[in-house]
Amino acid sequence: MTEQNRISLGMVGGGPGAGIGAAHRYGANMDGAFELTAGCFSRDPDKNTEMGRTLGLDPERIYTDWQRMAAVEGKRDDGVRAVSIVTPNDSHVPISLAFIDQGVHIICDKPLATSFGDAVQAHVAARSGGVIFGLTHIYACYAMVREARERVAAGELGELLMIQLEYATGGRAKLIEAQGDAGAQWRLTPEIAGPSSVLGDIGTHAHQLARFVTGLELAEVSADIHTVVRGRVADDNAHVNLRFQNGARGQLWASYAASGLGNGLQLRIFGDKGGLAWAQERPDELWIRPVDGSQKLLRRGEVGLSEAARRSSRMKIGHPQGILEAFANYYNSAAAAIAAVDAGAPVDGTSFEFATSRDGVLGMKFVEAAVESSAGNGRWVDATVDFASLESPLR
Amino acid sequence: MTEQNRISLGMVGGGPGAGIGAAHRYGANMDGAFELTAGCFSRDPDKNTEMGRTLGLDPERIYTDWQRMAAVEGKRDDGVRAVSIVTPNDSHVPISLAFIDQGVHIICDKPLATSFGDAVQAHVAARSGGVIFGLTHIYACYAMVREARERVAAGELGELLMIQLEYATGGRAKLIEAQGDAGAQWRLTPEIAGPSSVLGDIGTHAHQLARFVTGLELAEVSADIHTVVRGRVADDNAHVNLRFQNGARGQLWASYAASGLGNGLQLRIFGDKGGLAWAQERPDELWIRPVDGSQKLLRRGEVGLSEAARRSSRMKIGHPQGILEAFANYYNSAAAAIAAVDAGAPVDGTSFEFATSRDGVLGMKFVEAAVESSAGNGRWVDATVDFASLESPLR
Amino acid sequence: MTEQNRISLGMVGGGPGAGIGAAHRYGANMDGAFELTAGCFSRDPDKNTEMGRTLGLDPERIYTDWQRMAAVEGKRDDGVRAVSIVTPNDSHVPISLAFIDQGVHIICDKPLATSFGDAVQAHVAARSGGVIFGLTHIYACYAMVREARERVAAGELGELLMIQLEYATGGRAKLIEAQGDAGAQWRLTPEIAGPSSVLGDIGTHAHQLARFVTGLELAEVSADIHTVVRGRVADDNAHVNLRFQNGARGQLWASYAASGLGNGLQLRIFGDKGGLAWAQERPDELWIRPVDGSQKLLRRGEVGLSEAARRSSRMKIGHPQGILEAFANYYNSAAAAIAAVDAGAPVDGTSFEFATSRDGVLGMKFVEAAVESSAGNGRWVDATVDFASLESPLR
Amino acid sequence: MTEQNRISLGMVGGGPGAGIGAAHRYGANMDGAFELTAGCFSRDPDKNTEMGRTLGLDPERIYTDWQRMAAVEGKRDDGVRAVSIVTPNDSHVPISLAFIDQGVHIICDKPLATSFGDAVQAHVAARSGGVIFGLTHIYACYAMVREARERVAAGELGELLMIQLEYATGGRAKLIEAQGDAGAQWRLTPEIAGPSSVLGDIGTHAHQLARFVTGLELAEVSADIHTVVRGRVADDNAHVNLRFQNGARGQLWASYAASGLGNGLQLRIFGDKGGLAWAQERPDELWIRPVDGSQKLLRRGEVGLSEAARRSSRMKIGHPQGILEAFANYYNSAAAAIAAVDAGAPVDGTSFEFATSRDGVLGMKFVEAAVESSAGNGRWVDATVDFASLESPLR
Repeated sequence: MTEQNRISLGMVGGGPGAGIGAAHRYGANMDGAFELTAGCFSRDPDKNTEMGRTLGLDPERIYTDWQRMAAVEGKRDDGVRAVSIVTPNDSHVPISLAFIDQGVHIICDKPLATSFGDAVQAHVAARSGGVIFGLTHIYACYAMVREARERVAAGELGELLMIQLEYATGGRAKLIEAQGDAGAQWRLTPEIAGPSSVLGDIGTHAHQLARFVTGLELAEVSADIHTVVRGRVADDNAHVNLRFQNGARGQLWASYAASGLGNGLQLRIFGDKGGLAWAQERPDELWIRPVDGSQKLLRRGEVGLSEAARRSSRMKIGHPQGILEAFANYYNSAAAAIAAVDAGAPVDGTSFEFATSRDGVLGMKFVEAAVESSAGNGRWVDATVDFASLESPLR
Repeated sequence: MTEQNRISLGMVGGGPGAGIGAAHRYGANMDGAFELTAGCFSRDPDKNTEMGRTLGLDPERIYTDWQRMAAVEGKRDDGVRAVSIVTPNDSHVPISLAFIDQGVHIICDKPLATSFGDAVQAHVAARSGGVIFGLTHIYACYAMVREARERVAAGELGELLMIQLEYATGGRAKLIEAQGDAGAQWRLTPEIAGPSSVLGDIGTHAHQLARFVTGLELAEVSADIHTVVRGRVADDNAHVNLRFQNGARGQLWASYAASGLGNGLQLRIFGDKGGLAWAQERPDELWIRPVDGSQKLLRRGEVGLSEAARRSSRMKIGHPQGILEAFANYYNSAAAAIAAVDAGAPVDGTSFEFATSRDGVLGMKFVEAAVESSAGNGRWVDATVDFASLESPLR
Repeated sequence: MTEQNRISLGMVGGGPGAGIGAAHRYGANMDGAFELTAGCFSRDPDKNTEMGRTLGLDPERIYTDWQRMAAVEGKRDDGVRAVSIVTPNDSHVPISLAFIDQGVHIICDKPLATSFGDAVQAHVAARSGGVIFGLTHIYACYAMVREARERVAAGELGELLMIQLEYATGGRAKLIEAQGDAGAQWRLTPEIAGPSSVLGDIGTHAHQLARFVTGLELAEVSADIHTVVRGRVADDNAHVNLRFQNGARGQLWASYAASGLGNGLQLRIFGDKGGLAWAQERPDELWIRPVDGSQKLLRRGEVGLSEAARRSSRMKIGHPQGILEAFANYYNSAAAAIAAVDAGAPVDGTSFEFATSRDGVLGMKFVEAAVESSAGNGRWVDATVDFASLESPLR
Repeated sequence: MTEQNRISLGMVGGGPGAGIGAAHRYGANMDGAFELTAGCFSRDPDKNTEMGRTLGLDPERIYTDWQRMAAVEGKRDDGVRAVSIVTPNDSHVPISLAFIDQGVHIICDKPLATSFGDAVQAHVAARSGGVIFGLTHIYACYAMVREARERVAAGELGELLMIQLEYATGGRAKLIEAQGDAGAQWRLTPEIAGPSSVLGDIGTHAHQLARFVTGLELAEVSADIHTVVRGRVADDNAHVNLRFQNGARGQLWASYAASGLGNGLQLRIFGDKGGLAWAQERPDELWIRPVDGSQKLLRRGEVGLSEAARRSSRMKIGHPQGILEAFANYYNSAAAAIAAVDAGAPVDGTSFEFATSRDGVLGMKFVEAAVESSAGNGRWVDATVDFASLESPLR
């Protein structure tokens, strides 16, 4: 990636103190794939200006509202070719529609929307608008997750039988939304967060990770979603049983209230020839466990890994990579796709190595199905999506 | 425990090559709590005799059938005071009833029975017969599990909110019952194993472990039980959502088909003050994770542990104890209870440190409720037991 | 091992509260290889009697001094065939000589002696007396240590280049000998413990472990031995550089003062084809690390391990074995050797799977060489032993 | 750090394919502390031009030799204020002297020099020239290493007694310098690498890490340095015993030939109140082990860590940071120091949070003392440096 080819990027959200905005900027910048040139960072004008100046932006490209940003950037010759949307959930779809309308590629934080219907709307708009709609499920961009996917695809685990997923975090095990934590406040407000706070925010990450690595899609779910922290309005814990379309079974646990844990996203897959395990807090490691014999610990950077792992790796074995490098992997993949689409390639994401609005549509279907099951005494609810019919207006 | 006070013990089952019988003998013998004096080890007369001789038994106390053993030992002045029953599941109740009838204390392998009704019958018979009915859920006898229980009881985790359980094993991930593995054959035959092979055999261990450590009882369950290994008759994987009577939620995964895993029993408990984690394959370790602050790794033998942990420990810190020592802890606790009951104490097991038929009744209720839920499209099924009414004939 | 064939065993030392005596008894008894029939447990007559009674011994075989015990047992038709010596270091040789004199096999705690000369005397006496002289370096009896030895011998690591050893413990990081800890008192008294407390007590374990697994012998050592805990008389920390006879280099760290550690014995071996690592606190695991490619975690009980590992294993994969099982493995191996020698086999220990006085002679040479180097400004000191010349009187 | 304040940076070395150059650029750029504006990346003119263009440099600031670069940049009004030197060891001093001469601050890869004398020359020149001379021992810039230092300084471990260091890597366990690996070729050529390849390259990292965390300085060393890989010219393994000026003892193992390991830098410190352990491959974790009681696992991002750890952290708990973030921490600290010095602060590095030429002087003294000891039959060699006398011309 040379300096000359950097893609001009805008950002909506990500004002002072917003960790997720900073993470996106680190990722966009790390390998020089993008150059941040415009932004609308905060509804607070002072914070917005401060952020834009800190980032060295041209003052006239620091916008006080995203509607105007979309309109103006869409008309500039040197306007942004892509926009990162790092705002609360309920604004993802309206903001992205405004930019899609201007032909700007989208890189949007997850979850895509606060309802399945909205997710579909955004997805269809991006497809018909001919733009990439990236959704930043960045955990699937770790090198060893990509390695896992290659090995599953190559049959190393045999036929897949069971998938165990968990995303258990401890940071919201206390009622921190009552103590002024802004991130917790909106994530735990149903109108902003969507039908399930915990499944929308972190459950969808686990859902996408499993689908990415296995290539399997859900058939139906049976769920128990509830609020465990006293005084909390939104849900904060979900137990979901899973049935996949190939007959594999699974279990997902998503929690905000796992006291003492950090950012505990874990994936375990079991097939008739072996199992694998990956945990986000030790991202450079991947365990492969044949049905008979010794367990193998694969490390990023070792001899014999896939091309997918190698191109996701910047440093030699034993030199740890972290989550910012996963963000950079996401942005690099998105940049490659944007360059391809701008050169005439189709926007169909199936060949891409990063999540898109297609994953977002499936994610929102998963969330809504789980909520329906939980309200329905645990009964199994269909979680499939008929993309052919959804996308038919496009064809 | 002196040699002179050793309790005379019989054994039913545990012939040549039966690992579980050997484990029971190691445990009974390790600290000299029991002395094996009689047995009926195998339906094969030659194997039976061979085993009895190897163990140095008086030939006339090597019995070819357990009915005769119960009758004869019951009449001997020096007859067995307790019997270990290490046979397949479906024979636990009839064998135990025969010995209860003779006033012999029972130490029975789990699960207690193949139905809730049979379990109740055995439980009530033991109570009315005035004998101890021990059920060898030995995992709860590890020193650090006992430490965990003390800490939960002392409020170190605060109010309990979530309980995550798994017992995932890889040893039956292939169709080994078709390859002559005797243990797999009966465990995977529903008529012998009971309504759920995987939940009866290993799910009940996890269920008892959670109850032992937390003191909580189940309210209801929602389950998905199925067979993942092709060609298998019985079930081999179960995903169960849990609701406890205090409102805590949980999840249990029991599997015979977790390719590449060993004997993966794990317990994680989360409260509003912190969480804990224990894994059977590293039994000397217990993690305590306060809701804020550093994680603590407690090790068996360290300064400051509970009396319960200390009396379950034979060796200093860093000198590993294993599962045979857990068996010995079980047998030692049972010996103490037997001595107390023989000296006039009541047989009510609530003050005991080891599992009894009461746990077996609850375990079979759990299994039957899960099976009913799984057959009922995942609906929540009551898993409570009204012991007052069950035991009313005794009062 | 049948009851009928149990070898009659005596014990010297191991009175009430002595953990090491208890560990030996557990090991001798676990698989029924030995039967304890006589003992001299304590110089305190009351404690001695108490211990013998607790163990159910015939009162006339509870001896108040070991000299009389050796003499009397030597004359009894049913006298002990072997004796376990679990006393402080300085008495190992005189006690063993008394029993060797009676043709009794020896199982002696380490280190063999408090000087190289004494060690040689005991070794030569046992050889000329035609008895087994076992030395309980029990760490080499863990199943996965035996597996490691098989793999090194089969060339899996290639040519051996480096050996890293450590035995770091935290239990004596405070001046506990001034607080009444009896075990610490004698271990930290040079007259009783020998020329180096820390190397004699635990350094020799690491030394034997490395030799057992690699088959290599030391050439020379360069050492720095010192006392780190204030107020202590004896040494408590040793840093030793190692040169092996094949040219491999190594490092050994032995410490009583590694605050916060438990019983940290670790072995790492590196060859030109790969490395291996084993740590005593996780004894069922063995890491194999090829020079290129993935790391392999071998677990006791898995498919494909050596016969040596299998015969050291009682339980299936994932069912932890601990140090008492290692003691039992030691005693079982010793029993097999005793039976063989009693049936006419030679006493030469090179084909045995357990440590003997030969290891003790080499161990004391190692200790004395390290002490000489440390006193000599770190200069390299020869650590080889010419057994041919030592044993020449026997030939 | 705003865009406007970025420090203009040059780079010498770091051409196409040089991982270390890329790592420095990631670190310099990550938080916007520096802007790369000039460079001399390769002696190969085509590669040099290619690299400069890829990085978007003004063509006239892509220099074909560093002498000219120093001269020209020194005269430009907008010339570089600092230069990163990422060339082989033997060129560090001449290059840095040229830039010091122009008043340019130095950020130099380690080791500082190929001899103690050269190291002193560079150190004195920087001091007298009034410029910062940073030496990129970046491992001390991980957040949890900084946390460790704070805790040691606060007395959490008590008086320090022992320090165990290792830096064992497997990447050069085969004769890869004969297979065209350019990095291995110069690192294993004594004329380029210095008196000890393995100690200069990685031993000095461990040496600086220990000094940084403990605040202790070495008194003397006893070493065994050798070549274990057949056919190799330079040394590749070193075993060093350490004595610190406060009386603490230690051990250091540095190896290129630890087959199967990655980048195994580890630090363990033991005091009379407790120990700590940190391992580079899990950089977000720090173990604190009190002499009595439970072990504590501290995680980057948790509540209660020091300000030093917090300012080294970009992401929340459980979101891994890697080595590129450590590089960025280094560059950020260096930028702060450069800004301070340019504003008139003294260049004395004792208050800085990053390594400087002072560490480089001590590092080269350590290397030379170890080499002398190894050649001198392991005798203890003084490793102290009298900075007062070295720096006297400056005073």
